[in-house]
Amino acid sequence: MQTIKQYVEENKQRFLDELLELLRFPSVSADPSYKEDVLNTADYVANKLREAGAENVEICPTAGYPIVFGEKIIDPSKPTVLVYGHYDVQPADPLELWKTPPFEPTIRDEKIFARGACDDKGQFYMHIKAFELMIKSDSLPCNIKFMIEGEEEVGSSNLGLFVKANKERLKSDVVLISDTSMISLENPSLETGLRGLSYLEVEVTGPNRDLHSGVYGGAVANPATVLCQLIASLHDTNNHITIPGFYDDVLSLSEEERNSLNEAPYNEDEFKNDLGVKALWGEQGYSTIERTGIRPTLEVNGIWGGYIGEGAKTVLPSKASAKISMRLVPNQQSDKITQLFKEHFESIAPEYVNVKVTPHHGGEPVVTPTDSVAYKAAEKAIEESFGKKPIPTRGGGSIPIVALFEAELGIKTVLMGFGLDSDNLHSPNEKYDIANYYKGIETIPLFHKYFAELSLEQN
Amino acid sequence: MQTIKQYVEENKQRFLDELLELLRFPSVSADPSYKEDVLNTADYVANKLREAGAENVEICPTAGYPIVFGEKIIDPSKPTVLVYGHYDVQPADPLELWKTPPFEPTIRDEKIFARGACDDKGQFYMHIKAFELMIKSDSLPCNIKFMIEGEEEVGSSNLGLFVKANKERLKSDVVLISDTSMISLENPSLETGLRGLSYLEVEVTGPNRDLHSGVYGGAVANPATVLCQLIASLHDTNNHITIPGFYDDVLSLSEEERNSLNEAPYNEDEFKNDLGVKALWGEQGYSTIERTGIRPTLEVNGIWGGYIGEGAKTVLPSKASAKISMRLVPNQQSDKITQLFKEHFESIAPEYVNVKVTPHHGGEPVVTPTDSVAYKAAEKAIEESFGKKPIPTRGGGSIPIVALFEAELGIKTVLMGFGLDSDNLHSPNEKYDIANYYKGIETIPLFHKYFAELSLEQN
Repeated sequence: MQTIKQYVEENKQRFLDELLELLRFPSVSADPSYKEDVLNTADYVANKLREAGAENVEICPTAGYPIVFGEKIIDPSKPTVLVYGHYDVQPADPLELWKTPPFEPTIRDEKIFARGACDDKGQFYMHIKAFELMIKSDSLPCNIKFMIEGEEEVGSSNLGLFVKANKERLKSDVVLISDTSMISLENPSLETGLRGLSYLEVEVTGPNRDLHSGVYGGAVANPATVLCQLIASLHDTNNHITIPGFYDDVLSLSEEERNSLNEAPYNEDEFKNDLGVKALWGEQGYSTIERTGIRPTLEVNGIWGGYIGEGAKTVLPSKASAKISMRLVPNQQSDKITQLFKEHFESIAPEYVNVKVTPHHGGEPVVTPTDSVAYKAAEKAIEESFGKKPIPTRGGGSIPIVALFEAELGIKTVLMGFGLDSDNLHSPNEKYDIANYYKGIETIPLFHKYFAELSLEQN
Repeated sequence: MQTIKQYVEENKQRFLDELLELLRFPSVSADPSYKEDVLNTADYVANKLREAGAENVEICPTAGYPIVFGEKIIDPSKPTVLVYGHYDVQPADPLELWKTPPFEPTIRDEKIFARGACDDKGQFYMHIKAFELMIKSDSLPCNIKFMIEGEEEVGSSNLGLFVKANKERLKSDVVLISDTSMISLENPSLETGLRGLSYLEVEVTGPNRDLHSGVYGGAVANPATVLCQLIASLHDTNNHITIPGFYDDVLSLSEEERNSLNEAPYNEDEFKNDLGVKALWGEQGYSTIERTGIRPTLEVNGIWGGYIGEGAKTVLPSKASAKISMRLVPNQQSDKITQLFKEHFESIAPEYVNVKVTPHHGGEPVVTPTDSVAYKAAEKAIEESFGKKPIPTRGGGSIPIVALFEAELGIKTVLMGFGLDSDNLHSPNEKYDIANYYKGIETIPLFHKYFAELSLEQN
């Protein structure tokens, strides 16, 4: 532990500067106009892997953005850890809400503000620096492989093919991902599950053209009004989702499981104050921790139709649309839920409009075992560097590829995230605490150490 | 009638070319970026008035866009007609739906396609050409005043002050407006009433920032979902508006009045086919003609919130907004309805969101008497030029200033419109039939002739 702390201490400024440089690339995978920047980011990551001591570093082309691979095999008989991360980021808009520009990282009260600061540049880069540390201090205890992709924020559309085609090259004993959050530095936690996702777009069409709302209003269905009525009908008064069969496959937890989950520190007033809301909302019969962890949801991510410019336009629009995503929990299947939504939404559409449902992408929910060697290694690593055993939690977000790795590579994943829920992921003013960044770099080598040791004991 | 027909025949091409030139000005009053174009349009109109023979032509400044005034007083003892029109137009978007650019007027099958072709450039310009005709043929039978404004499409915000300040100058016996439609050239009609308007914007705010829909989804109210629920609740299952007191002041018509209204030619299948809808929608218990004529409505003119760009973003938005307008019928008051909406919308907002209701503008509904000299003159004029007595109809649109003239100048208005409901007002591919344009120019001098004659008889 001393060598680790010392190395981090001696290199902290450089570690920070390199991350800031990485954050300056506007690697927005959802927006084609950033194509060059996304590709340049892949180059940067590949170079840093080489500098840190990785071998066989390659920018692997895909039908979309490339995947950066690199590895260090010290002894084929030793266990191998596959580190996954993503160098692409969410769109930054609404830009006007950023205090400082999203791609000009700025440090305020010990926090780095930039799009991608936490999700996921700040977090995957900790692994490259921890790897550098283990190489330089000649303490790498196991084999390590890196797979950093550039399409996570748009559904990892090409990662599946890559994994299928490179099973040998990616062969490992566990996947290690830092792309989630912990409760706090005082209350470190480890996520033991993630929600799945079904993301789609709906379009409601009324008349074949925009109409004058005075001449036609009252006699022709307004697709914006109808879209609102359809969306409103998707939740009942208890905020249950009304899609027939939606909950059929939901894995319900035992009382004990629910209780231990609810033991995680949570202060409702702090939670409300942080969000600036007077009251919370959610499915009746469940706590906030359960609503975001073990229950599925349906959210409108975007809605638009008619005249949305300055001033007034008295138009009865021809179309109205919405982007809707559902978070899924263990045992639900993304494709099945997408299909259930499509059938239901089409079935409730009144005859005076046409509806179109277009699936975007999805991902399966996962549960990671807490009795595995890898989980125990993460637990010990955190306990040593934080001085406190981590609390097992369920993450509300989705990392679809976790299920993919399990299916294709037959290995489990450990979600060792160092972010905070307050890091504004996907929001303006995304940030990452410098303390968490350094703490992560200190903790990761301990994970590799204990994973190697415990794997040995096991055999 | 012969002189009229002959003059129109001899000048048809020039009449058309001048209108096309007028239509090339993108005089969009709602969008500040067109300011220069709107002002240039006012100059063009003023010059054309002068060329036609108007005196005291002036571009009268207001706090917004100027009002073009001009007049010809042949004999103060003779009756005076005040012609009103507007040279501003609706925004042209969505641009991609225009077959030819909105400000490059194009003629296809005897129709002029351009923004403003019918509303209102094509219609008010008929009056300038008819005036030219009466001057050149020395047949102007009464005094005439022109007041062409530039802010009708944004609520005529400054016209009220101008009228109040210029009562003497505007003193007339009747207001003549061509800014409405008739059923068809085969079934000419005259509008005897117009709906009022209350236009406002609502904003629903949930959390103080956009949130990650995975981390927070399910535990925090989504303002887009809530906005949909609130909008959905504004109509009941019979498509009645649910705002308490909304219908209190509605003037209901007698059976005879309703029957005569429903005698207007209307073919439901043609109506549906033209709009491309399988079924119609509207308030239970009323016909399409009643729904668009004598009943109030509530329409969503625009809605937006969250991520509406390309691709997917898993965001739980902080805000969602909508532009909503209500069409009012005789006896309802714009301010009162706006207030009722505001109070109701705020009262139904759940505690987990904040709502803000911002009134845009409004206008009062009007009924024009069918027993007045002016109406009879219009009736005779149309009967002579169309060979058919006009059918009295109720217009669904709103021309707020009609009520203003009645209040401030104490005179009634005649709505002699030559447009068609199928002219795509406020929509892409707005058009005006060349035949209607010429027919209007032929009919207007007859109105002045009979108005002068009948006024004389009356005294």
